[in-house]
Amino acid sequence: MNVIKVGGAVVEEPASLSILLDQFCAVPGPKVLVHGGGRTATNLAKQLGIESQMVGGRRITDAEMLKVVTMVYGGLVNKNIVAQLQARGVNALGLTGADINLVRAHRRPITPEGVDFGFVGDVDSADGAQLMRLLEMGITPVIAPLTHDGQGHMLNINADTMAQTAAVALSAVAPNATLTYCFELPGVMRDPADPASLIPQITEESFKALVADGTIAGGMIPKLENAFAAIRAGVAAVRITHISDLQGGTVIVGN
Amino acid sequence: MNVIKVGGAVVEEPASLSILLDQFCAVPGPKVLVHGGGRTATNLAKQLGIESQMVGGRRITDAEMLKVVTMVYGGLVNKNIVAQLQARGVNALGLTGADINLVRAHRRPITPEGVDFGFVGDVDSADGAQLMRLLEMGITPVIAPLTHDGQGHMLNINADTMAQTAAVALSAVAPNATLTYCFELPGVMRDPADPASLIPQITEESFKALVADGTIAGGMIPKLENAFAAIRAGVAAVRITHISDLQGGTVIVGN
Repeated sequence: MNVIKVGGAVVEEPASLSILLDQFCAVPGPKVLVHGGGRTATNLAKQLGIESQMVGGRRITDAEMLKVVTMVYGGLVNKNIVAQLQARGVNALGLTGADINLVRAHRRPITPEGVDFGFVGDVDSADGAQLMRLLEMGITPVIAPLTHDGQGHMLNINADTMAQTAAVALSAVAPNATLTYCFELPGVMRDPADPASLIPQITEESFKALVADGTIAGGMIPKLENAFAAIRAGVAAVRITHISDLQGGTVIVGN
Repeated sequence: MNVIKVGGAVVEEPASLSILLDQFCAVPGPKVLVHGGGRTATNLAKQLGIESQMVGGRRITDAEMLKVVTMVYGGLVNKNIVAQLQARGVNALGLTGADINLVRAHRRPITPEGVDFGFVGDVDSADGAQLMRLLEMGITPVIAPLTHDGQGHMLNINADTMAQTAAVALSAVAPNATLTYCFELPGVMRDPADPASLIPQITEESFKALVADGTIAGGMIPKLENAFAAIRAGVAAVRITHISDLQGGTVIVGN
Protein backbone atom coordinates (compact mmCIF):
# COMPACT_ATOMS: atom_id res chain seq x y z
CA MET A 1 0.00 0.00 0.00
CA ASN A 2 1.95 2.98 -1.27
CA VAL A 3 1.09 6.66 -1.61
CA ILE A 4 3.43 8.29 -4.11
CA LYS A 5 3.58 12.06 -4.43
CA VAL A 6 5.04 13.76 -7.45
CA GLY A 7 5.38 17.46 -7.97
CA GLY A 8 7.83 20.10 -8.99
CA ALA A 9 8.77 20.12 -12.61
CA VAL A 10 8.15 16.39 -12.93
CA VAL A 11 4.46 16.38 -13.80
CA GLU A 12 4.78 19.41 -16.02
CA GLU A 13 7.46 18.07 -18.39
CA PRO A 14 6.24 15.26 -20.68
CA ALA A 15 9.62 13.43 -20.56
CA SER A 16 9.95 13.35 -16.76
CA LEU A 17 6.25 12.59 -16.31
CA SER A 18 6.64 9.61 -18.62
CA ILE A 19 9.61 8.28 -16.58
CA LEU A 20 7.66 8.74 -13.36
CA LEU A 21 4.54 7.02 -14.69
CA ASP A 22 6.59 4.04 -15.92
CA GLN A 23 8.15 3.75 -12.44
CA PHE A 24 4.77 4.20 -10.78
CA CYS A 25 3.25 1.41 -12.89
CA ALA A 26 6.12 -0.90 -11.85
CA VAL A 27 5.36 -0.46 -8.13
CA PRO A 28 3.64 -3.69 -7.06
CA GLY A 29 0.39 -3.73 -5.10
CA PRO A 30 -2.31 -1.12 -4.52
CA LYS A 31 -1.08 2.45 -4.90
CA VAL A 32 -2.21 6.05 -4.92
CA LEU A 33 -0.67 8.91 -6.89
CA VAL A 34 -0.83 12.48 -5.54
CA HIS A 35 0.35 15.25 -7.84
CA GLY A 36 1.14 18.95 -7.81
CA GLY A 37 1.14 21.39 -10.70
CA GLY A 38 2.13 24.74 -9.22
CA ARG A 39 4.29 25.94 -12.09
CA THR A 40 1.53 25.40 -14.62
CA ALA A 41 -0.88 27.25 -12.30
CA THR A 42 1.56 30.14 -11.96
CA ASN A 43 2.00 30.28 -15.75
CA LEU A 44 -1.74 30.22 -16.44
CA ALA A 45 -2.32 32.89 -13.79
CA LYS A 46 0.32 35.07 -15.43
CA GLN A 47 -1.31 34.61 -18.86
CA LEU A 48 -4.62 35.70 -17.30
CA GLY A 49 -3.03 38.71 -15.60
CA ILE A 50 -3.44 37.25 -12.10
CA GLU A 51 -0.49 37.79 -9.79
CA SER A 52 0.77 34.75 -7.83
CA GLN A 53 1.53 35.63 -4.23
CA MET A 54 3.46 33.15 -2.10
CA VAL A 55 4.01 33.33 1.67
CA GLY A 56 6.44 30.81 3.18
CA GLY A 57 6.24 28.67 0.04
CA ARG A 58 2.43 28.53 0.17
CA ARG A 59 0.18 30.10 -2.44
CA ILE A 60 -2.31 32.79 -1.48
CA THR A 61 -5.52 31.70 -3.17
CA ASP A 62 -8.07 34.43 -3.84
CA ALA A 63 -11.26 33.69 -5.81
CA GLU A 64 -9.56 34.12 -9.19
CA MET A 65 -6.55 32.01 -8.20
CA LEU A 66 -8.91 29.32 -6.89
CA LYS A 67 -10.40 29.08 -10.39
CA VAL A 68 -6.91 28.76 -11.85
CA VAL A 69 -5.79 25.95 -9.52
CA THR A 70 -9.13 24.13 -9.88
CA MET A 71 -8.65 24.20 -13.65
CA VAL A 72 -4.97 23.26 -13.62
CA TYR A 73 -4.79 20.72 -10.77
CA GLY A 74 -8.29 19.23 -11.03
CA GLY A 75 -8.52 19.40 -14.83
CA LEU A 76 -5.38 19.69 -16.94
CA VAL A 77 -2.74 17.93 -14.83
CA ASN A 78 -5.05 15.36 -13.25
CA LYS A 79 -6.76 14.22 -16.45
CA ASN A 80 -3.54 14.05 -18.44
CA ILE A 81 -2.08 11.74 -15.80
CA VAL A 82 -5.27 9.65 -15.77
CA ALA A 83 -5.24 9.29 -19.57
CA GLN A 84 -1.56 8.33 -19.56
CA LEU A 85 -2.03 5.75 -16.79
CA GLN A 86 -5.02 4.28 -18.66
CA ALA A 87 -2.77 4.00 -21.73
CA ARG A 88 -0.39 1.95 -19.52
CA GLY A 89 -3.20 -0.37 -18.43
CA VAL A 90 -3.62 1.14 -14.96
CA ASN A 91 -7.27 1.75 -14.06
CA ALA A 92 -6.78 5.34 -12.86
CA LEU A 93 -9.48 7.52 -11.34
CA GLY A 94 -8.83 11.23 -10.89
CA LEU A 95 -10.05 12.69 -7.61
CA THR A 96 -9.97 15.78 -5.48
CA GLY A 97 -10.78 15.74 -1.79
CA ALA A 98 -14.30 16.93 -2.71
CA ASP A 99 -15.01 13.81 -4.79
CA ILE A 100 -16.73 11.13 -2.70
CA ASN A 101 -16.09 13.59 0.18
CA LEU A 102 -12.62 12.06 0.50
CA VAL A 103 -11.04 14.92 2.46
CA ARG A 104 -12.96 17.27 4.72
CA ALA A 105 -11.35 20.63 5.39
CA HIS A 106 -12.07 24.17 6.49
CA ARG A 107 -10.82 27.43 5.13
CA ARG A 108 -7.63 28.42 6.93
CA PRO A 109 -8.22 31.28 9.37
CA ILE A 110 -6.17 34.45 9.07
CA THR A 111 -2.78 33.72 10.66
CA PRO A 112 -1.61 35.44 13.88
CA GLU A 113 0.73 37.41 11.60
CA GLY A 114 -2.30 38.70 9.68
CA VAL A 115 -1.82 36.62 6.52
CA ASP A 116 -5.08 35.64 4.77
CA PHE A 117 -4.31 32.63 2.56
CA GLY A 118 -7.79 32.87 1.04
CA PHE A 119 -9.33 29.64 -0.27
CA VAL A 120 -6.71 27.38 1.28
CA GLY A 121 -7.85 24.33 3.20
CA ASP A 122 -6.67 22.93 6.51
CA VAL A 123 -7.60 19.26 6.70
CA ASP A 124 -10.10 18.06 9.31
CA SER A 125 -10.30 14.40 8.33
CA ALA A 126 -9.88 12.00 5.43
CA ASP A 127 -11.75 8.84 4.57
CA GLY A 128 -9.23 6.00 4.38
CA ALA A 129 -12.00 3.41 4.17
CA GLN A 130 -13.38 4.94 0.94
CA LEU A 131 -9.87 5.09 -0.52
CA MET A 132 -9.38 1.46 0.46
CA ARG A 133 -12.67 0.52 -1.19
CA LEU A 134 -11.47 2.00 -4.48
CA LEU A 135 -8.13 0.17 -4.19
CA GLU A 136 -9.97 -3.11 -3.52
CA MET A 137 -11.95 -2.52 -6.74
CA GLY A 138 -8.64 -2.44 -8.65
CA ILE A 139 -8.86 1.32 -9.07
CA THR A 140 -5.76 3.52 -8.78
CA PRO A 141 -6.70 6.91 -7.30
CA VAL A 142 -4.90 9.94 -8.76
CA ILE A 143 -5.40 12.78 -6.30
CA ALA A 144 -5.13 16.50 -7.13
CA PRO A 145 -4.17 18.94 -4.35
CA LEU A 146 -7.68 20.35 -3.94
CA THR A 147 -10.45 19.70 -1.48
CA HIS A 148 -13.66 21.34 -0.23
CA ASP A 149 -15.22 22.90 2.83
CA GLY A 150 -18.50 20.95 2.82
CA GLN A 151 -20.30 24.25 2.13
CA GLY A 152 -19.93 24.14 -1.64
CA HIS A 153 -16.49 25.74 -2.03
CA MET A 154 -13.36 24.15 -3.39
CA LEU A 155 -10.16 24.77 -1.40
CA ASN A 156 -6.51 24.71 -2.43
CA ILE A 157 -4.22 22.43 -0.44
CA ASN A 158 -0.50 21.81 -0.57
CA ALA A 159 0.24 18.61 -2.51
CA ASP A 160 2.70 17.31 0.11
CA THR A 161 0.01 17.79 2.74
CA MET A 162 -2.51 15.97 0.55
CA ALA A 163 -0.10 13.05 0.15
CA GLN A 164 0.52 12.92 3.90
CA THR A 165 -3.25 13.09 4.53
CA ALA A 166 -3.91 10.19 2.14
CA ALA A 167 -1.11 8.05 3.62
CA VAL A 168 -2.25 8.67 7.20
CA ALA A 169 -5.88 7.89 6.28
CA LEU A 170 -4.79 4.63 4.63
CA SER A 171 -2.64 3.75 7.65
CA ALA A 172 -5.75 3.84 9.80
CA VAL A 173 -7.30 1.01 7.77
CA ALA A 174 -4.27 -0.84 6.38
CA PRO A 175 -0.97 -1.78 7.99
CA ASN A 176 2.31 -0.88 6.29
CA ALA A 177 1.02 2.05 4.25
CA THR A 178 4.06 3.96 3.03
CA LEU A 179 4.57 7.43 1.59
CA THR A 180 7.06 8.34 -1.13
CA TYR A 181 7.79 11.90 -2.17
CA CYS A 182 9.51 11.88 -5.53
CA PHE A 183 10.97 14.75 -7.49
CA GLU A 184 13.90 15.70 -9.69
CA LEU A 185 16.69 15.22 -7.11
CA PRO A 186 18.11 11.93 -5.73
CA GLY A 187 16.72 12.74 -2.25
CA VAL A 188 17.59 15.22 0.49
CA MET A 189 21.06 16.52 -0.42
CA ARG A 190 23.76 18.33 1.54
CA ASP A 191 24.64 19.97 -1.78
CA PRO A 192 22.00 19.75 -4.55
CA ALA A 193 24.80 19.99 -7.15
CA ASP A 194 26.62 16.92 -5.75
CA PRO A 195 24.84 13.55 -6.14
CA ALA A 196 27.27 12.00 -3.63
CA SER A 197 25.95 14.31 -0.90
CA LEU A 198 22.67 12.40 -0.53
CA ILE A 199 21.60 12.06 3.10
CA PRO A 200 20.42 8.43 3.28
CA GLN A 201 18.48 8.73 6.53
CA ILE A 202 17.02 11.57 8.59
CA THR A 203 15.62 11.33 12.12
CA GLU A 204 13.67 14.08 13.89
CA GLU A 205 16.83 14.85 15.84
CA SER A 206 19.15 15.06 12.82
CA PHE A 207 16.45 17.12 11.02
CA LYS A 208 16.66 19.79 13.72
CA ALA A 209 20.44 19.92 13.40
CA LEU A 210 20.29 20.06 9.57
CA VAL A 211 17.83 22.98 9.72
CA ALA A 212 19.91 24.74 12.39
CA ASP A 213 23.10 24.59 10.29
CA GLY A 214 21.29 25.66 7.12
CA THR A 215 21.75 22.35 5.22
CA ILE A 216 17.98 21.98 4.92
CA ALA A 217 16.13 25.15 3.93
CA GLY A 218 13.22 26.55 1.92
CA GLY A 219 10.53 24.23 0.57
CA MET A 220 12.33 21.16 1.93
CA ILE A 221 11.44 22.16 5.50
CA PRO A 222 7.62 21.82 5.16
CA LYS A 223 8.17 18.64 3.09
CA LEU A 224 10.12 17.05 5.95
CA GLU A 225 7.72 18.38 8.56
CA ASN A 226 4.93 16.64 6.62
CA ALA A 227 7.05 13.47 6.54
CA PHE A 228 7.55 13.45 10.31
CA ALA A 229 3.88 14.23 10.89
CA ALA A 230 3.05 11.19 8.73
CA ILE A 231 5.41 8.94 10.73
CA ARG A 232 3.98 10.16 14.03
CA ALA A 233 0.46 9.51 12.69
CA GLY A 234 1.23 5.89 11.88
CA VAL A 235 2.65 5.77 8.33
CA ALA A 236 5.10 2.87 8.20
CA ALA A 237 7.83 4.60 6.16
CA VAL A 238 8.46 7.84 4.31
CA ARG A 239 10.93 8.19 1.49
CA ILE A 240 12.14 11.22 -0.49
CA THR A 241 13.66 10.19 -3.79
CA HIS A 242 14.20 10.72 -7.51
CA ILE A 243 11.40 9.81 -9.93
CA SER A 244 13.57 7.11 -11.52
CA ASP A 245 14.47 5.36 -8.23
CA LEU A 246 11.38 4.84 -6.07
CA GLN A 247 13.29 2.42 -3.78
CA GLY A 248 16.25 4.76 -3.16
CA GLY A 249 16.74 8.27 -1.86
CA THR A 250 16.41 9.50 1.72
CA VAL A 251 14.45 7.51 4.28
CA ILE A 252 12.70 9.44 7.06
CA VAL A 253 12.48 7.61 10.38
CA GLY A 254 11.16 8.46 13.84
CA ASN A 255 13.56 8.77 16.76
CA MET B 1 -32.10 5.27 -12.95
CA ASN B 2 -31.87 8.71 -14.50
CA VAL B 3 -29.18 10.44 -16.53
CA ILE B 4 -29.68 14.20 -16.40
CA LYS B 5 -27.77 16.47 -18.72
CA VAL B 6 -27.41 20.16 -18.06
CA GLY B 7 -25.63 22.64 -20.25
CA GLY B 8 -26.05 26.00 -21.85
CA ALA B 9 -25.98 28.94 -19.52
CA VAL B 10 -27.36 26.83 -16.67
CA VAL B 11 -24.13 25.48 -15.20
CA GLU B 12 -22.32 28.75 -15.74
CA GLU B 13 -24.65 31.02 -13.78
CA PRO B 14 -24.59 30.42 -10.01
CA ALA B 15 -28.34 31.16 -9.63
CA SER B 16 -29.54 28.74 -12.33
CA LEU B 17 -26.98 26.11 -11.29
CA SER B 18 -28.34 26.27 -7.76
CA ILE B 19 -31.93 25.76 -8.99
CA LEU B 20 -30.81 22.82 -11.13
CA LEU B 21 -28.85 21.17 -8.32
CA ASP B 22 -31.79 21.49 -5.93
CA GLN B 23 -34.03 19.83 -8.54
CA PHE B 24 -31.39 17.18 -9.25
CA CYS B 25 -31.12 16.34 -5.55
CA ALA B 26 -34.91 15.93 -5.39
CA VAL B 27 -34.92 13.26 -8.14
CA PRO B 28 -35.43 9.94 -6.34
CA GLY B 29 -33.22 6.92 -6.95
CA PRO B 30 -29.79 6.50 -8.50
CA LYS B 31 -28.85 9.28 -10.89
CA VAL B 32 -26.03 10.60 -13.04
CA LEU B 33 -25.36 14.25 -13.92
CA VAL B 34 -23.67 15.14 -17.22
CA HIS B 35 -22.67 18.77 -17.71
CA GLY B 36 -21.40 21.13 -20.39
CA GLY B 37 -19.49 24.34 -19.99
CA GLY B 38 -18.88 25.62 -23.50
CA ARG B 39 -19.38 29.30 -22.78
CA THR B 40 -16.80 29.29 -19.99
CA ALA B 41 -14.40 27.46 -22.31
CA THR B 42 -14.97 30.03 -25.06
CA ASN B 43 -14.40 32.87 -22.57
CA LEU B 44 -11.19 31.36 -21.20
CA ALA B 45 -9.93 30.68 -24.72
CA LYS B 46 -10.60 34.30 -25.62
CA GLN B 47 -8.70 35.52 -22.54
CA LEU B 48 -5.78 33.32 -23.61
CA GLY B 49 -5.91 34.60 -27.20
CA ILE B 50 -7.14 31.27 -28.59
CA GLU B 51 -9.81 31.53 -31.25
CA SER B 52 -12.87 29.29 -30.88
CA GLN B 53 -13.87 27.74 -34.20
CA MET B 54 -17.22 26.01 -34.47
CA VAL B 55 -18.45 23.85 -37.38
CA GLY B 56 -22.11 22.77 -37.30
CA GLY B 57 -22.35 23.67 -33.61
CA ARG B 58 -19.32 21.51 -32.74
CA ARG B 59 -16.05 22.91 -31.44
CA ILE B 60 -12.81 22.40 -33.35
CA THR B 61 -10.34 21.27 -30.70
CA ASP B 62 -6.68 21.83 -31.47
CA ALA B 63 -3.98 21.09 -28.86
CA GLU B 64 -4.39 24.47 -27.15
CA MET B 65 -8.19 24.26 -27.11
CA LEU B 66 -7.95 20.72 -25.69
CA LYS B 67 -6.04 22.17 -22.72
CA VAL B 68 -8.75 24.80 -22.29
CA VAL B 69 -11.66 22.33 -22.30
CA THR B 70 -9.78 19.88 -20.07
CA MET B 71 -9.28 22.70 -17.56
CA VAL B 72 -12.81 24.09 -17.79
CA TYR B 73 -14.92 20.93 -18.14
CA GLY B 74 -12.75 18.50 -16.15
CA GLY B 75 -11.62 21.01 -13.53
CA LEU B 76 -13.56 24.22 -12.97
CA VAL B 77 -17.13 23.25 -13.87
CA ASN B 78 -16.94 19.63 -12.73
CA LYS B 79 -15.39 20.28 -9.32
CA ASN B 80 -17.68 23.20 -8.54
CA ILE B 81 -20.69 20.97 -9.19
CA VAL B 82 -19.15 18.18 -7.08
CA ALA B 83 -18.50 20.56 -4.17
CA GLN B 84 -22.03 21.96 -4.37
CA LEU B 85 -23.61 18.50 -4.48
CA GLN B 86 -21.50 17.41 -1.51
CA ALA B 87 -22.79 20.49 0.35
CA ARG B 88 -26.32 19.18 -0.39
CA GLY B 89 -25.48 15.76 1.04
CA VAL B 90 -25.14 14.00 -2.33
CA ASN B 91 -22.02 11.83 -2.54
CA ALA B 92 -20.83 13.18 -5.90
CA LEU B 93 -17.82 11.90 -7.83
CA GLY B 94 -16.51 13.89 -10.78
CA LEU B 95 -15.51 11.84 -13.80
CA THR B 96 -14.44 12.09 -17.39
CA GLY B 97 -14.63 9.17 -19.80
CA ALA B 98 -10.91 8.59 -19.12
CA ASP B 99 -11.49 7.97 -15.41
CA ILE B 100 -11.94 4.25 -14.70
CA ASN B 101 -11.85 3.95 -18.51
CA LEU B 102 -15.57 4.73 -18.52
CA VAL B 103 -15.83 5.76 -22.17
CA ARG B 104 -13.54 4.50 -24.90
CA ALA B 105 -13.28 6.66 -27.99
CA HIS B 106 -11.10 7.40 -30.97
CA ARG B 107 -10.10 10.68 -32.49
CA ARG B 108 -12.61 11.70 -35.13
CA PRO B 109 -11.23 11.25 -38.67
CA ILE B 110 -11.20 14.20 -41.03
CA THR B 111 -14.72 14.51 -42.44
CA PRO B 112 -15.53 13.87 -46.11
CA GLU B 113 -15.91 17.67 -46.36
CA GLY B 114 -12.30 18.05 -45.19
CA VAL B 115 -13.04 19.32 -41.66
CA ASP B 116 -10.48 18.27 -39.04
CA PHE B 117 -12.17 18.56 -35.64
CA GLY B 118 -8.83 17.90 -33.91
CA PHE B 119 -8.93 16.26 -30.49
CA VAL B 120 -12.63 15.40 -30.67
CA GLY B 121 -13.74 11.91 -29.72
CA ASP B 122 -16.17 9.55 -31.40
CA VAL B 123 -17.38 7.00 -28.87
CA ASP B 124 -16.54 3.31 -29.33
CA SER B 125 -18.06 1.94 -26.13
CA ALA B 126 -19.00 2.84 -22.58
CA ASP B 127 -18.90 0.76 -19.43
CA GLY B 128 -22.41 0.70 -17.96
CA ALA B 129 -21.43 -1.98 -15.44
CA GLN B 130 -18.77 0.27 -13.87
CA LEU B 131 -21.24 3.16 -13.76
CA MET B 132 -23.77 0.84 -12.12
CA ARG B 133 -21.18 -0.26 -9.56
CA LEU B 134 -20.64 3.35 -8.51
CA LEU B 135 -24.40 3.92 -8.26
CA GLU B 136 -24.76 0.80 -6.12
CA MET B 137 -22.10 2.22 -3.77
CA GLY B 138 -24.33 5.27 -3.25
CA ILE B 139 -22.08 7.43 -5.41
CA THR B 140 -23.55 10.01 -7.80
CA PRO B 141 -21.34 10.32 -10.90
CA VAL B 142 -20.91 13.84 -12.31
CA ILE B 143 -19.58 13.45 -15.84
CA ALA B 144 -17.68 16.09 -17.81
CA PRO B 145 -17.82 16.02 -21.63
CA LEU B 146 -14.31 14.68 -22.05
CA THR B 147 -12.92 11.23 -22.74
CA HIS B 148 -9.73 9.58 -23.97
CA ASP B 149 -8.32 7.55 -26.83
CA GLY B 150 -6.63 4.82 -24.75
CA GLN B 151 -3.28 6.08 -26.07
CA GLY B 152 -2.79 8.74 -23.41
CA HIS B 153 -4.68 11.63 -25.01
CA MET B 154 -7.78 13.33 -23.70
CA LEU B 155 -10.54 14.00 -26.25
CA ASN B 156 -13.33 16.57 -26.32
CA ILE B 157 -16.86 15.21 -26.71
CA ASN B 158 -20.21 16.91 -27.06
CA ALA B 159 -22.04 16.90 -23.70
CA ASP B 160 -25.33 15.76 -25.25
CA THR B 161 -23.48 12.84 -26.82
CA MET B 162 -21.85 12.02 -23.48
CA ALA B 163 -25.27 12.02 -21.78
CA GLN B 164 -26.71 9.77 -24.48
CA THR B 165 -23.67 7.46 -24.18
CA ALA B 166 -24.09 7.18 -20.41
CA ALA B 167 -27.84 6.53 -20.66
CA VAL B 168 -27.40 3.86 -23.34
CA ALA B 169 -24.61 2.17 -21.33
CA LEU B 170 -26.82 2.11 -18.23
CA SER B 171 -29.75 0.76 -20.28
CA ALA B 172 -27.63 -2.26 -21.14
CA VAL B 173 -27.37 -3.22 -17.45
CA ALA B 174 -30.52 -1.67 -15.93
CA PRO B 175 -34.10 -1.54 -17.20
CA ASN B 176 -35.91 1.79 -17.33
CA ALA B 177 -32.86 4.03 -17.57
CA THR B 178 -34.10 7.44 -18.67
CA LEU B 179 -32.37 10.50 -20.10
CA THR B 180 -33.33 14.11 -19.37
CA TYR B 181 -31.84 17.07 -21.18
CA CYS B 182 -32.49 20.20 -19.19
CA PHE B 183 -31.76 23.79 -20.05
CA GLU B 184 -33.15 27.31 -19.78
CA LEU B 185 -36.30 26.78 -21.93
CA PRO B 186 -39.49 24.86 -21.02
CA GLY B 187 -38.74 22.23 -23.69
CA VAL B 188 -38.81 22.16 -27.49
CA MET B 189 -40.75 25.27 -28.49
CA ARG B 190 -42.49 26.33 -31.70
CA ASP B 191 -41.61 29.89 -30.65
CA PRO B 192 -38.92 30.25 -27.96
CA ALA B 193 -40.49 33.57 -26.90
CA ASP B 194 -43.90 31.96 -26.24
CA PRO B 195 -44.10 29.49 -23.32
CA ALA B 196 -47.47 28.26 -24.60
CA SER B 197 -45.81 26.99 -27.79
CA LEU B 198 -44.19 24.02 -26.02
CA ILE B 199 -44.32 20.84 -28.12
CA PRO B 200 -45.27 18.17 -25.55
CA GLN B 201 -44.28 15.16 -27.61
CA ILE B 202 -42.07 14.52 -30.65
CA THR B 203 -41.84 11.30 -32.65
CA GLU B 204 -39.20 10.53 -35.29
CA GLU B 205 -41.86 11.31 -37.91
CA SER B 206 -42.96 14.63 -36.44
CA PHE B 207 -39.26 15.54 -35.94
CA LYS B 208 -38.66 15.25 -39.68
CA ALA B 209 -41.63 17.51 -40.39
CA LEU B 210 -40.56 20.06 -37.76
CA VAL B 211 -37.04 20.24 -39.24
CA ALA B 212 -38.42 20.47 -42.78
CA ASP B 213 -40.64 23.45 -41.93
CA GLY B 214 -37.86 25.21 -39.97
CA THR B 215 -39.54 24.97 -36.54
CA ILE B 216 -36.56 22.98 -35.22
CA ALA B 217 -33.17 24.36 -36.23
CA GLY B 218 -29.60 24.94 -35.07
CA GLY B 219 -28.30 23.19 -31.97
CA MET B 220 -31.70 21.59 -31.28
CA ILE B 221 -31.23 19.28 -34.29
CA PRO B 222 -28.20 17.33 -32.93
CA LYS B 223 -29.84 17.32 -29.47
CA LEU B 224 -32.93 15.59 -30.88
CA GLU B 225 -30.84 13.29 -33.06
CA ASN B 226 -29.03 12.22 -29.88
CA ALA B 227 -32.38 11.69 -28.19
CA PHE B 228 -33.69 9.42 -30.96
CA ALA B 229 -30.38 7.53 -31.06
CA ALA B 230 -30.78 6.93 -27.32
CA ILE B 231 -34.36 5.63 -27.76
CA ARG B 232 -33.31 3.33 -30.60
CA ALA B 233 -30.45 2.05 -28.39
CA GLY B 234 -32.78 1.07 -25.57
CA VAL B 235 -33.20 4.12 -23.32
CA ALA B 236 -36.71 3.95 -21.83
CA ALA B 237 -37.58 7.65 -22.17
CA VAL B 238 -35.98 10.92 -23.18
CA ARG B 239 -37.21 14.30 -21.97
CA ILE B 240 -36.16 17.85 -22.89
CA THR B 241 -37.19 20.31 -20.21
CA HIS B 242 -36.51 23.37 -18.06
CA ILE B 243 -34.12 23.05 -15.10
CA SER B 244 -36.95 23.82 -12.67
CA ASP B 245 -39.33 21.16 -14.02
CA LEU B 246 -37.56 17.81 -14.50
CA GLN B 247 -40.93 16.02 -14.92
CA GLY B 248 -42.31 18.38 -17.59
CA GLY B 249 -41.19 19.62 -20.99
CA THR B 250 -41.07 17.70 -24.25
CA VAL B 251 -41.08 13.90 -24.30
CA ILE B 252 -39.28 12.15 -27.14
CA VAL B 253 -40.81 8.85 -28.21
CA GLY B 254 -40.08 6.29 -30.92
CA ASN B 255 -42.55 5.75 -33.70
